Amino acid sequence: MPEVVTFGEIMMRLSPPGKKKLDQADHLDILYSGAEANVSAALANWGIHAAHITRFPDNPLGLAATAAWRYLNVDMSFTAYSADRLGLYFVENGAMNRSTNITYDRLPSSFSTIQKDSFDWEKILKDAKWFHWTGITPALSQGAADCLLEALKVANRKGIRVSADINYRSNLWQYEKKPGEVMEPLVALSHVIVAAETDTAKIFGIEGEATEDGFRKIAGKMKERFGSMECLLSSRRETISSSHNRLSGILWNGADVLQTPTYEMDNIVERIGSGDAFIAGYIYGYLKKWSDQQKIDFATASAVMKHSVEGDINRVSAGEILDLVEGNTGGWIKR
Amino acid sequence: MPEVVTFGEIMMRLSPPGKKKLDQADHLDILYSGAEANVSAALANWGIHAAHITRFPDNPLGLAATAAWRYLNVDMSFTAYSADRLGLYFVENGAMNRSTNITYDRLPSSFSTIQKDSFDWEKILKDAKWFHWTGITPALSQGAADCLLEALKVANRKGIRVSADINYRSNLWQYEKKPGEVMEPLVALSHVIVAAETDTAKIFGIEGEATEDGFRKIAGKMKERFGSMECLLSSRRETISSSHNRLSGILWNGADVLQTPTYEMDNIVERIGSGDAFIAGYIYGYLKKWSDQQKIDFATASAVMKHSVEGDINRVSAGEILDLVEGNTGGWIKR
Amino acid sequence: MPEVVTFGEIMMRLSPPGKKKLDQADHLDILYSGAEANVSAALANWGIHAAHITRFPDNPLGLAATAAWRYLNVDMSFTAYSADRLGLYFVENGAMNRSTNITYDRLPSSFSTIQKDSFDWEKILKDAKWFHWTGITPALSQGAADCLLEALKVANRKGIRVSADINYRSNLWQYEKKPGEVMEPLVALSHVIVAAETDTAKIFGIEGEATEDGFRKIAGKMKERFGSMECLLSSRRETISSSHNRLSGILWNGADVLQTPTYEMDNIVERIGSGDAFIAGYIYGYLKKWSDQQKIDFATASAVMKHSVEGDINRVSAGEILDLVEGNTGGWIKR
Amino acid sequence: MPEVVTFGEIMMRLSPPGKKKLDQADHLDILYSGAEANVSAALANWGIHAAHITRFPDNPLGLAATAAWRYLNVDMSFTAYSADRLGLYFVENGAMNRSTNITYDRLPSSFSTIQKDSFDWEKILKDAKWFHWTGITPALSQGAADCLLEALKVANRKGIRVSADINYRSNLWQYEKKPGEVMEPLVALSHVIVAAETDTAKIFGIEGEATEDGFRKIAGKMKERFGSMECLLSSRRETISSSHNRLSGILWNGADVLQTPTYEMDNIVERIGSGDAFIAGYIYGYLKKWSDQQKIDFATASAVMKHSVEGDINRVSAGEILDLVEGNTGGWIKR
Amino acid sequence: MPEVVTFGEIMMRLSPPGKKKLDQADHLDILYSGAEANVSAALANWGIHAAHITRFPDNPLGLAATAAWRYLNVDMSFTAYSADRLGLYFVENGAMNRSTNITYDRLPSSFSTIQKDSFDWEKILKDAKWFHWTGITPALSQGAADCLLEALKVANRKGIRVSADINYRSNLWQYEKKPGEVMEPLVALSHVIVAAETDTAKIFGIEGEATEDGFRKIAGKMKERFGSMECLLSSRRETISSSHNRLSGILWNGADVLQTPTYEMDNIVERIGSGDAFIAGYIYGYLKKWSDQQKIDFATASAVMKHSVEGDINRVSAGEILDLVEGNTGGWIKR
Amino acid sequence: MPEVVTFGEIMMRLSPPGKKKLDQADHLDILYSGAEANVSAALANWGIHAAHITRFPDNPLGLAATAAWRYLNVDMSFTAYSADRLGLYFVENGAMNRSTNITYDRLPSSFSTIQKDSFDWEKILKDAKWFHWTGITPALSQGAADCLLEALKVANRKGIRVSADINYRSNLWQYEKKPGEVMEPLVALSHVIVAAETDTAKIFGIEGEATEDGFRKIAGKMKERFGSMECLLSSRRETISSSHNRLSGILWNGADVLQTPTYEMDNIVERIGSGDAFIAGYIYGYLKKWSDQQKIDFATASAVMKHSVEGDINRVSAGEILDLVEGNTGGWIKR
Repeated sequence: MPEVVTFGEIMMRLSPPGKKKLDQADHLDILYSGAEANVSAALANWGIHAAHITRFPDNPLGLAATAAWRYLNVDMSFTAYSADRLGLYFVENGAMNRSTNITYDRLPSSFSTIQKDSFDWEKILKDAKWFHWTGITPALSQGAADCLLEALKVANRKGIRVSADINYRSNLWQYEKKPGEVMEPLVALSHVIVAAETDTAKIFGIEGEATEDGFRKIAGKMKERFGSMECLLSSRRETISSSHNRLSGILWNGADVLQTPTYEMDNIVERIGSGDAFIAGYIYGYLKKWSDQQKIDFATASAVMKHSVEGDINRVSAGEILDLVEGNTGGWIKR
Repeated sequence: MPEVVTFGEIMMRLSPPGKKKLDQADHLDILYSGAEANVSAALANWGIHAAHITRFPDNPLGLAATAAWRYLNVDMSFTAYSADRLGLYFVENGAMNRSTNITYDRLPSSFSTIQKDSFDWEKILKDAKWFHWTGITPALSQGAADCLLEALKVANRKGIRVSADINYRSNLWQYEKKPGEVMEPLVALSHVIVAAETDTAKIFGIEGEATEDGFRKIAGKMKERFGSMECLLSSRRETISSSHNRLSGILWNGADVLQTPTYEMDNIVERIGSGDAFIAGYIYGYLKKWSDQQKIDFATASAVMKHSVEGDINRVSAGEILDLVEGNTGGWIKR
Repeated sequence: MPEVVTFGEIMMRLSPPGKKKLDQADHLDILYSGAEANVSAALANWGIHAAHITRFPDNPLGLAATAAWRYLNVDMSFTAYSADRLGLYFVENGAMNRSTNITYDRLPSSFSTIQKDSFDWEKILKDAKWFHWTGITPALSQGAADCLLEALKVANRKGIRVSADINYRSNLWQYEKKPGEVMEPLVALSHVIVAAETDTAKIFGIEGEATEDGFRKIAGKMKERFGSMECLLSSRRETISSSHNRLSGILWNGADVLQTPTYEMDNIVERIGSGDAFIAGYIYGYLKKWSDQQKIDFATASAVMKHSVEGDINRVSAGEILDLVEGNTGGWIKR
Repeated sequence: MPEVVTFGEIMMRLSPPGKKKLDQADHLDILYSGAEANVSAALANWGIHAAHITRFPDNPLGLAATAAWRYLNVDMSFTAYSADRLGLYFVENGAMNRSTNITYDRLPSSFSTIQKDSFDWEKILKDAKWFHWTGITPALSQGAADCLLEALKVANRKGIRVSADINYRSNLWQYEKKPGEVMEPLVALSHVIVAAETDTAKIFGIEGEATEDGFRKIAGKMKERFGSMECLLSSRRETISSSHNRLSGILWNGADVLQTPTYEMDNIVERIGSGDAFIAGYIYGYLKKWSDQQKIDFATASAVMKHSVEGDINRVSAGEILDLVEGNTGGWIKR
Repeated sequence: MPEVVTFGEIMMRLSPPGKKKLDQADHLDILYSGAEANVSAALANWGIHAAHITRFPDNPLGLAATAAWRYLNVDMSFTAYSADRLGLYFVENGAMNRSTNITYDRLPSSFSTIQKDSFDWEKILKDAKWFHWTGITPALSQGAADCLLEALKVANRKGIRVSADINYRSNLWQYEKKPGEVMEPLVALSHVIVAAETDTAKIFGIEGEATEDGFRKIAGKMKERFGSMECLLSSRRETISSSHNRLSGILWNGADVLQTPTYEMDNIVERIGSGDAFIAGYIYGYLKKWSDQQKIDFATASAVMKHSVEGDINRVSAGEILDLVEGNTGGWIKR
Repeated sequence: MPEVVTFGEIMMRLSPPGKKKLDQADHLDILYSGAEANVSAALANWGIHAAHITRFPDNPLGLAATAAWRYLNVDMSFTAYSADRLGLYFVENGAMNRSTNITYDRLPSSFSTIQKDSFDWEKILKDAKWFHWTGITPALSQGAADCLLEALKVANRKGIRVSADINYRSNLWQYEKKPGEVMEPLVALSHVIVAAETDTAKIFGIEGEATEDGFRKIAGKMKERFGSMECLLSSRRETISSSHNRLSGILWNGADVLQTPTYEMDNIVERIGSGDAFIAGYIYGYLKKWSDQQKIDFATASAVMKHSVEGDINRVSAGEILDLVEGNTGGWIKR
């Protein structure tokens, strides 16, 4: 039974090759990915038994998506199937001063139509140590929010540690309820929160500067509101261009604010999924019983290394990430 | 202004390269096509000013689809845009005894959500001589059926000749009304009908054998029911395998039943779109004022030649089709 | 735990795209396949829990191969790893009168260097109903033959049904022992034997014509020699060219000789792996408790359909195969 | 009728994929492009009705080229066809310290053999507001120069604004006349001139430093010589390597010299066509009735953004360019 | 020094992948080939030291072409270079009833501008046993015809056997002289002539039926006209479709007319270059001192096998061809 | 006969396209390369008659490898063939902070099994001026070391200049002898040594700082040990990331230590083979009779430019390299 369980939508991603725009391509590369599943994929790549919980359409696309995730060594044995469709998104990769563009074609996907009782959480979480969710799931539909709440209740009952990546996206959240209203009870059942200043401001009205002090202040207010929260963390990005960013990590653990060096990231291969690589790195550190500084260092280096691979998923080994943590920023030929 | 106007949905078609199945591919080839638009594309390729009327989403996919059809020299100046999505379908090309599989992801597309007044038919049909529709459009939604009926009324008022490809597909027709009920008034405003025995049987309850006599019998009953009908035509296919078919054409013109030779089609490249190439051939013959025998001969040869090209659209020139009509079935090197 | 267990080498297959020869290609398509594993892949595709037992090198190639087979839904949880190399083979696909050429680069692969005790057969075969092997494995090395013998002993002790595909290839068998000498005790522990006249002649000196009577005669002699044998079956191929073959199946079940229709196979996509699809079909019929005629019919249709897909593995569904058994030899468009 | 008309050759561009050299490739990517047409393509992409005037061979390549430009939404309805050939050029994209290499195979192309009266300029320029040409056209042949002079006369008669990109290339100009001699009367009919110091020096002997003062000095001397000139503009490039350049814009409007910030351009995707994107940006600003500073800002940002896309044509939207003008140099993910 | 010398143009061939038409492709596959050079390539593939004599442009394309032919093991050490261009041709591969289309862009190529003294034939032919030319070369230009005549004079003086493939193509021969006038003295210096009835009729006015008797009659009249001729041979093709042909060979050796079986060629991969493979097979048989029947058998089987490979060149081994001569028409898997 | 002779293994290199990892690819790009052969390829590209001496398997892979090297204009006429296999290596190209990974599958290759007398060195070195080897060859097997020693003896006897690239790789050297023991007599017959501080330390225990003084010190100790040594040179690399390095060259010529500027190398295309490009540059300078400063300048610029092309081989022209030596670090468009 899985040690880590992630829950969320997996979509088919279609992207023109290289730096082409959609109307320059005669074929599209396909991947299947999702913010939460990417966390399981990174952990599985590092040797952790991780399961991802999702629902696919019962057609060749749903079956292909399942196979693609078995390939990644993620436990897909709890996958549900329905008559709906597979969510899609089209990615035009940015370059230089040109931003990456994503066109979503998401609803009504098989995942977004799930209901409160779509999964048997007691069985799924039987031996789990960690459960991970993001703000994308409750944004999709009332049913998805209900189902997530069920999972969180079971997880808390079982003493499973819960991480939540707030990940606020305003263009989701198309149903009646307001984000804050829906998120409140969900975050209240979570222990490790990934959130930038913009996330906490927009969802909970908790504001602060993008500084060490600002972060401490936000953490304090979040802790007041969400007693369950034991750790708040975030990656901080400076963008010189689509091809050149800088990244560092920051973490509040109830007592201290810990930070990492800032990594220079030039010649970026692909940025999407780096946030997922970040929290995956933290969870890995937790399972390895590392110190908080080690956790935030590994999480940040994991996010940095994600920029060096194609696709949404961090295919880099734990050893390669540790190399970077130890300061080996240069690329060598390993024979 | 266009001489021929076609009306219907254009979808994005995604297919694995070669004979691969969906779960064997790491990229999908893209095309934009639709049964009615394919007729305009064939006619445009033969030098006719043809316009296709459709609605796309107002996003990069809708713009790319528009561009792709401008490329084909089809007049897209009447294209409408909406906030919905682009319909998709996934094609696994068959081979030998393996059938071609199509997975649709069609609703709620920008086309299917059109309404009665979505297009200014008076303006569109200003100088048209021919209007073409298929049974796919009214099957999509009440709005699409309403909009089509409007077009047909305007066309009839203006004395424009109307062709209808019945093209019955049971897995469409998901809204309340029955196919026959919806189709009746539409066919009653059409003059040239493409229908196989299965189409007339399933929609109108008009049955007959797949023989010359059977066809004459069906034509008679159709004429009784639809006084507007001046011509009934159909292609007849015998399938030895996905790669080897035989094809002939048959036509009733109010007086006689005319037939064509049966073409041996081995080493088929791709079959999809051959029905569209068939009626396109007939319309071309009409515009060229050919005899009925010439029309059905050209229509059938056009359908045959479609099997020799990739994609849904007949990219073969009129000259190449006439070569086949004249009995040059062999392939040479033209320098 | 798996219902069916297969045992043998999985190699990396490298082939030029399309009909190119090796020296015409600037890249090679990669697949991972093996005669025995292909049987598990087909069964997994039809919904059977099948496990394949093999050993890979502990390097990126071995991990990629494992992932590729997880993708196929084959249970790879018993996979062993060693310090050796991954076996390779290069395939130039034939066309017309040009034969398919395979260049092997096989030894010393991680599988060929296994020993008697490399796997814990008691655990692997715990709940199995069927074990499948081929003559390729004992041909590789003494260690592989020893290890197979161990598996067969455990399987027989547990009452598991064993199938053996003789599959004699003279250019293997490079170590000291003679094929017949090694094969004798292995076949003596098997119940369902796949063998053509050439196989039985070359390994056991049992000869017969390629006729119904000849097959009955061979079956009789085989039964005398191998009391364990309850069924002998074979597919029979006539080759008009690399692109055009004919195939039928024949089976002796201890009492009768049963045959299937002969299938015309033109426009072949790829032939490799059809023998594996054949025995997979038989095993599927057994698990479904079908009659012997049904088994040989499904096995033969499975082998035929394999020729319509790329790669060594039968990716065709059970439903598609049953369609062919029922005489639907023509390829249609399934929407 | 088109608002902007551009005139010049469109060639087939063949380039090895990625950073390969010609002798490393087994296929070549194809595009159809030309310095003047690229201006129409950029404007069409920003919503302007632009027409490009050219001549193609009457063969499959000429038809494909026409279609490719219809795809780009450029009005190709005035395209002429002749019996000659399509000009070709082969591009090896540079990287790091390696320069981009272009091998031309241009003559005798269908465009280069045009004559004075090959186009009906009265009709083409009926409703135009802007006409654009470059120094490449008169360099090709006497006929091309003659035809251009005719166009300029008609444009001036109609009060159409004319832009000229001097674009001096010494390896063109193979016929008898000297560049200056041919260019003199053409520039004398133009109002907006794009020229670097090297252009004015080599063609008109007007020299100056690459400084603000130098530019003012050159502008002054050009104005003396060409009374029609109302604006002189140029982009200024510093090359650190093929992958890393810096770019700024400078403009003289009869009164002032205006400049833009210098943009750091690292991780360049492709540089070709940036000069065309520059003047296209200026024309767009003119049609939008922007200030001169706004025009040169947009023109320069357009040129910068061109470096982020594949091919010769600026496929970036006006909104994306305005983003850069406003200082958003960083690349984000737009969802 | 080379045993066989061939002389003629090598062009760059650009073709859309698979069965696409030119306007369906976003890239073109490249090959370098020529009718005469293809003969050297086949012979080199069979182990003969063959040299091809040609002239390329002195640019990256000419160098790439030279390298491509070194790759094929053809001796390119006599290659000349000039300032002109590389001849090009664009091939759309036919399928089913659709013919193959070739668009030439040939003049003024570096080869077509050669002159009488462009090559040092004394040196080139020093140790040669065979010289091969085709009717394409004298059709290109007076200079090419003159240069060829020089080569033939030297070859005859040295007692080198000369083969000529008449290969009449009416759309070549654009300069003043008539084909027959130019060909007469060239054929008069040749000993082995490849010509179909259409060739002899159109060039020399020598007509005959496409029968054994007709061939004997034509051979007789040719011998009267060209005393040097010792052998006349031809392949005979029946085209059912582009994908399905039948082929046989016929030869007159001064005494008898010898024929081969007719080969059924279905599922053709590519037909271009089969005539070159035919005469290459004859020359190989001559060098091996085979009987005339063996020569025509091998030549015909070589032409048949060419249809099974991509590109213009017969990459099939001599062993594979002999297999077909011996009646092994079926395709097997060779391990 | 060749002026320069190189000796060593050529392997098949298989690499995923772009920045993909092995398990992200469905095909692998193929190249054939080797450290010593790369030197011949660079020299051949610059117009030198260079021969490479190696042994391949006598199968389609060995023949394809030979052809690939003929393509590069390297004299392969001395190539030997044996029954073994072709060595392989799999390259995952690094990016940003991710290193390049190479997985070798090398033994028992046809080259590694050569013996003392596998080549006729007297004949091969008949007219040679230079012989080049690297430390990879003696590391493979005793036979390879023996064969190399033979070559060096012949070369020294003939007064041929010998270069040795120490190139110490600890994971080779799997047979009984120690690296220093094997290398000692080989280096003692060499005149130009390429070695970094790590090489001399690990093999000969000669240590020194990576400074000018350190290099002078090492050179002095090396000279004491190896009287034959007339020149010691090395490139020095600083790695900011896999995509961004800095490179300079240093040379001791018996008297002085000469250095080059440090080149900034950002946006690296591919680094592998830059060491081979370095020594190739030195040899070229020697053959051109340049000064030592010119030699080290050209060698270093050659190594820098190698980073701008795909694959292991420096395909950059001598002119392009000289451009860089002269300080033209910027990339322009050469038309």
